[in-house]
Amino acid sequence: SRSDFVLVWEEPRSMQEESMGVSPAHHRWREEFLKRLRHSGLLQEQKEVLQTKKRICFVLLSAPWSVLCYYAEEISLRVPLQVQPTSSAAVLTLSSRLTACPLSSFQDQQAGEVQTFLGSNNKDTFFKTTQRHQVLYEILARTPYGLVKNGEVGVDRLVNEQVFTAAYPLHEVRCTPRAWSEAAVSLSLRQILYAYWAQWSCWRRYQPLDHIREYFGEKIALYFAWLGFYTGWLLPASVVGTVIFLIGFWLVATDIPANELCGSGNSFVMCPLCNICSYWNYSSICVTYKAGLLFDNGGTVFLSVFMSLWAITFLEYWKRTCSSLSHRWDCSDFQDIEERPRPEFTAMAPMTMRNPVTGAEEPYFPENKRFNRTLTGCMVIIIMVSLLKSSIASFSGSVLNLLVILLLSRIYTALAHILTRWEMHRTQTKYEDMFILKVFVFQFVNFYSSPVYIAFFKGRFIGYPGNYNTLFGVRNEDCGAGGCLIDLAQELLVIMVGKQLINNIQEFISPKMNPQLKEAGQEAQRQEEASPWEADYQLLVCEGLFSEYLEMVIQFGFITIFVAACPLAPLFALINNWVEVRLDAQKFVTEYRRPVVERAQDIGIWFPILQFIAHMAVLSNAFLIAFTSSFVPRLYYRYTRDSTLSGFINFTLATSPLSYQQQHNTSCRYRGFRDENGEYLPEYFHLLAIQLGFVIIFEHVVFFIGRLIDLMVPDVSEEVEMKIKREHYMAKEALAENQVSK
Amino acid sequence: SRSDFVLVWEEPRSMQEESMGVSPAHHRWREEFLKRLRHSGLLQEQKEVLQTKKRICFVLLSAPWSVLCYYAEEISLRVPLQVQPTSSAAVLTLSSRLTACPLSSFQDQQAGEVQTFLGSNNKDTFFKTTQRHQVLYEILARTPYGLVKNGEVGVDRLVNEQVFTAAYPLHEVRCTPRAWSEAAVSLSLRQILYAYWAQWSCWRRYQPLDHIREYFGEKIALYFAWLGFYTGWLLPASVVGTVIFLIGFWLVATDIPANELCGSGNSFVMCPLCNICSYWNYSSICVTYKAGLLFDNGGTVFLSVFMSLWAITFLEYWKRTCSSLSHRWDCSDFQDIEERPRPEFTAMAPMTMRNPVTGAEEPYFPENKRFNRTLTGCMVIIIMVSLLKSSIASFSGSVLNLLVILLLSRIYTALAHILTRWEMHRTQTKYEDMFILKVFVFQFVNFYSSPVYIAFFKGRFIGYPGNYNTLFGVRNEDCGAGGCLIDLAQELLVIMVGKQLINNIQEFISPKMNPQLKEAGQEAQRQEEASPWEADYQLLVCEGLFSEYLEMVIQFGFITIFVAACPLAPLFALINNWVEVRLDAQKFVTEYRRPVVERAQDIGIWFPILQFIAHMAVLSNAFLIAFTSSFVPRLYYRYTRDSTLSGFINFTLATSPLSYQQQHNTSCRYRGFRDENGEYLPEYFHLLAIQLGFVIIFEHVVFFIGRLIDLMVPDVSEEVEMKIKREHYMAKEALAENQVSK
Repeated sequence: SRSDFVLVWEEPRSMQEESMGVSPAHHRWREEFLKRLRHSGLLQEQKEVLQTKKRICFVLLSAPWSVLCYYAEEISLRVPLQVQPTSSAAVLTLSSRLTACPLSSFQDQQAGEVQTFLGSNNKDTFFKTTQRHQVLYEILARTPYGLVKNGEVGVDRLVNEQVFTAAYPLHEVRCTPRAWSEAAVSLSLRQILYAYWAQWSCWRRYQPLDHIREYFGEKIALYFAWLGFYTGWLLPASVVGTVIFLIGFWLVATDIPANELCGSGNSFVMCPLCNICSYWNYSSICVTYKAGLLFDNGGTVFLSVFMSLWAITFLEYWKRTCSSLSHRWDCSDFQDIEERPRPEFTAMAPMTMRNPVTGAEEPYFPENKRFNRTLTGCMVIIIMVSLLKSSIASFSGSVLNLLVILLLSRIYTALAHILTRWEMHRTQTKYEDMFILKVFVFQFVNFYSSPVYIAFFKGRFIGYPGNYNTLFGVRNEDCGAGGCLIDLAQELLVIMVGKQLINNIQEFISPKMNPQLKEAGQEAQRQEEASPWEADYQLLVCEGLFSEYLEMVIQFGFITIFVAACPLAPLFALINNWVEVRLDAQKFVTEYRRPVVERAQDIGIWFPILQFIAHMAVLSNAFLIAFTSSFVPRLYYRYTRDSTLSGFINFTLATSPLSYQQQHNTSCRYRGFRDENGEYLPEYFHLLAIQLGFVIIFEHVVFFIGRLIDLMVPDVSEEVEMKIKREHYMAKEALAENQVSK
Repeated sequence: SRSDFVLVWEEPRSMQEESMGVSPAHHRWREEFLKRLRHSGLLQEQKEVLQTKKRICFVLLSAPWSVLCYYAEEISLRVPLQVQPTSSAAVLTLSSRLTACPLSSFQDQQAGEVQTFLGSNNKDTFFKTTQRHQVLYEILARTPYGLVKNGEVGVDRLVNEQVFTAAYPLHEVRCTPRAWSEAAVSLSLRQILYAYWAQWSCWRRYQPLDHIREYFGEKIALYFAWLGFYTGWLLPASVVGTVIFLIGFWLVATDIPANELCGSGNSFVMCPLCNICSYWNYSSICVTYKAGLLFDNGGTVFLSVFMSLWAITFLEYWKRTCSSLSHRWDCSDFQDIEERPRPEFTAMAPMTMRNPVTGAEEPYFPENKRFNRTLTGCMVIIIMVSLLKSSIASFSGSVLNLLVILLLSRIYTALAHILTRWEMHRTQTKYEDMFILKVFVFQFVNFYSSPVYIAFFKGRFIGYPGNYNTLFGVRNEDCGAGGCLIDLAQELLVIMVGKQLINNIQEFISPKMNPQLKEAGQEAQRQEEASPWEADYQLLVCEGLFSEYLEMVIQFGFITIFVAACPLAPLFALINNWVEVRLDAQKFVTEYRRPVVERAQDIGIWFPILQFIAHMAVLSNAFLIAFTSSFVPRLYYRYTRDSTLSGFINFTLATSPLSYQQQHNTSCRYRGFRDENGEYLPEYFHLLAIQLGFVIIFEHVVFFIGRLIDLMVPDVSEEVEMKIKREHYMAKEALAENQVSK
């Protein structure tokens, strides 16, 4: 039978005996492990590749039919049921658990049971490649290599301990173009994916999700489905954003305050923005002011509402699409009831205890100790975050800021790894969730704290000329000459576009720079005729989807939370993701070792994180429009003073107080609503009340409509629900018939 | 075997032949129905009771063992599985569907299959009474009495068409005290419920939920579980409310503004409150002002936050308790996949169509037509509601208002019935949900519109002396002398306490006034020795839980939405519910016919309604404290003017404008922040900004904490989750073992 899984280890070539001396335990474990694998019925085939310095040993594993059947039952593999001709529906492949083919009793008299499943007459094709991988991985993961009590079980831990250097399922046939371009008729799945998915020329096509799922499993397919879905939804958002931006051009041309400002000449002499700055003319920021108006206009209010609702609707429809997909892929009631403990957990756990579900003795870490550690972890994060929040705020120079952010991401991720490992979570899922949460909190603060600072705090507490507020003796930072919104837009552009560019370039280049690949380069001439297991060994280890998701989630945050300051953000995101889809596809098809198929019914903890961001977006947009943009002052001026807005510029500028004039022998203007003593004018409080009222109305309206959308869009589409009911009904009927006919 | 179900019809005694002439179709249907029941294997026994004017015919039905087995499978009854001695766990009764005993094949060679279930050796006790009822009702509901195509199926429709006057399962032994008080050793279930649940003397006990569930089924048991749970949770709320109220007494005694007011004598002459009113001294409302302070103080802010969080936490914990209960009662994955259409629906549906799930032909009502009707229904409700909202607002005299509200409730409910019937919903569940929603919207507006009007609108838009705003020529209504909060508290007290009193008195008296019971009174002497079916026939028809739930939900609204104006509301609710539990218990045990057991896994649509109310409560409390109470003005005065609050009374009163003084030759004061021209003072805008800011902060903090609580309290308790996992695991193991041993 075909070999599906490969175990690899390396030995120094020249001094074989010594290396055994170096790690006798490793050698013993490896031998024991392989022996036990043989015992559980796996077929092994050993291959060696000699390199200049070392010997690489490959063990090719494959499972015979009987083993496959036994474990298929154990891990609840689902296979389609054969439709009985007596049954009423014409064409319906019921999905049902393969409930019956235990290893020992798989003889002829029992064959009837397997025959009720579709395609069971061909033993070679009955189990799909990915299912064989799952079975093999299951066996590898539960075979012990030492004392079970010490948790010396499973290949993951052996790889961890460097007993094996790698363990991976084999890719299908290589997909270098010249190898198959002629014989396009009978392409393998991998070749199909390469040709119809991973090529740049496919940019206009939908992704072949069913094929991806078949080759990589549900978890990875769901990522790509989500990415494609998100990219699709970005289309309307970016169209609306761009239109609003373009409308801005027309509004700028007809805007009276802008014309007033540009034509004001020397009439508005502004106070210095910092202690060593000089006086400046307000008319000098004419261009900046006009640029700011491109997105600081009534259209942005509409865009903010639109994007907030867009985010909510997007998530609702994703839920729906996800449930359709998971129904189509038959993993909708997937639940890991008895998830195995992580190998690291078993290795480190200080004691054992009975598992309350299975009743088996297994490694245990006391609950309250874990709770304490998690608490400590939270404290560490809070401290780190608050420390870094303050340090970031001071670098609001945009490009430097970006570099700091990208550097800190790395440090953060490493810290999160250490913390999460120390917290000793029992299962991989729990571990990943906690890790994701930690990194997300880190990154959220890391990426968003400087925009948040600029949007809501910078320039708010500066006092007024002659009476500037100071913090530690330093005058509080004011926004640039163009105002805070311009500063924010600039910051966002640099972070978003810069980050995406850097990331994509990294993704594009880094695989080609990998040291392992370089080393392999010396044997490049041989590579053409290398065996598949060797070729796969040269590839990168698939690190999981974490960083891909994280990147997208941070991006989702930018285009929703700060959309009021950057209506083009959805467009940039759209372009980026269009590239991202194909880049990721290429990575998975050609650059990564094949990952073991994992099941999933949704995108996991990322969904609540996205929901959290969508919530934050509503709050942020409300406050941005109310307090950072000039929307409310303009509205106020229009309805109380002058409907054409003439004189608005003068209205927004206060005159420096008398004391300042006496001190400096000159008077200047500054943004604010204060009288000649520096006290707030009544208009300030009118505006404040209107702004707060605006926030309340905006939030309530948007959340209310969001809730309505939530109610109107059922989580499962009617069609799928009907199908599920129909299947339940058919299954019940089939069982009853079966019972009667026996 | 015992008879479990009774069908009843009445015939005029003297003119038997004529009556057959009057309704030959009825007679034919009845005969056909009874014949078909015999065919499906039910045993029938006919009894007649002669009364002076009419003959009452009873048909006692019972099902033999084989019929029970067949239908138990059909309706997926769940019975405990016999634990195999080979299985690893010592004591564990696994719950599993009774999957195998079809009628035809129930012979000895198949007996093995039933023997795997617990208690299957005793055919008399294997099925519980309630399960026998379910089976019988199932048969009655699906037996046709005419053309199936016309929907002439089922006993519900026959009762609807008056072919039968009643169809009900039999109660257990009568529970008049003298009949059983001596032989207390072997009480029947009904007697247990009567003695340990329905008696007033049980007020300190927990309810025997398992017994209630055994006798009345999960749906009713869940109502009582919820009611008990809610009453329990009212305890802390009412303690906190009462304490806050008592603290109010101390605060009043030391309150400087109150003392200033009471000692002010004639110094504050107030402007007339209406056109025909006269001037009055502010000191005359001394007592009212002090009473208002009992709940208008800092404690109320705490209470509002507390009750908002209480409501959220209560709902979260109910979810948890509910999942525990539904797991214990084994109905957690109850889903009605193939719910039958309502009898009225089948009778009225204009066409038939294939059911997409079962593939059977059945009555059908076009989806788009139903949508149109539902939309029209919504419009009708909106119109009704907006019409009545305005009419209610004008009666804010409290007692009259209550009577109007109670009258309108009746009209509303009738209208909702008509509308919902007209919308033609296919299933009973859908019908009930839509009906509940409609009535809830009606009642919500009906009960809450007048408090909302008083709290947020009354007295807000009155203008100022000399320039009163008018609506249709009438001066806008001002709040009473004591202020709006006092008005609100008064209104709430009347509505809440009054409504609860009236309801409870009604519930207590009405069964005793029932005409049917009176008529039966003439045969009272015979009643003692009457047969059980006759006795049950005299009882009231159980109308379902709708009105019970509605009452509680409206109450829940009062104690959460307006708690800031009435800190004693939770206490009143607590007292009311303590009575309510026992009153309802008595009704169900002694005054209602026994209802057919219904399954349910939660309280259905009432839960989202409660969540909606809890949300509303947060908004309402935020606005009540910010705008209706004097909390913010006092705070503002304390921090900007005088920390002892002396002079506060003067601060809150404006002086009538100069124009008014010239006109009336006198000056007077009124509540407001206006200058001598009637323009708003800067303080008004300061306060407005603070109030709006308070709303924003209050809402965000409470919703944020609420969300945290939501996250911290898992919907299913860990214990139950572990049990569920354990059961899944055991079931899987048992199946595998079974497979191997075969």
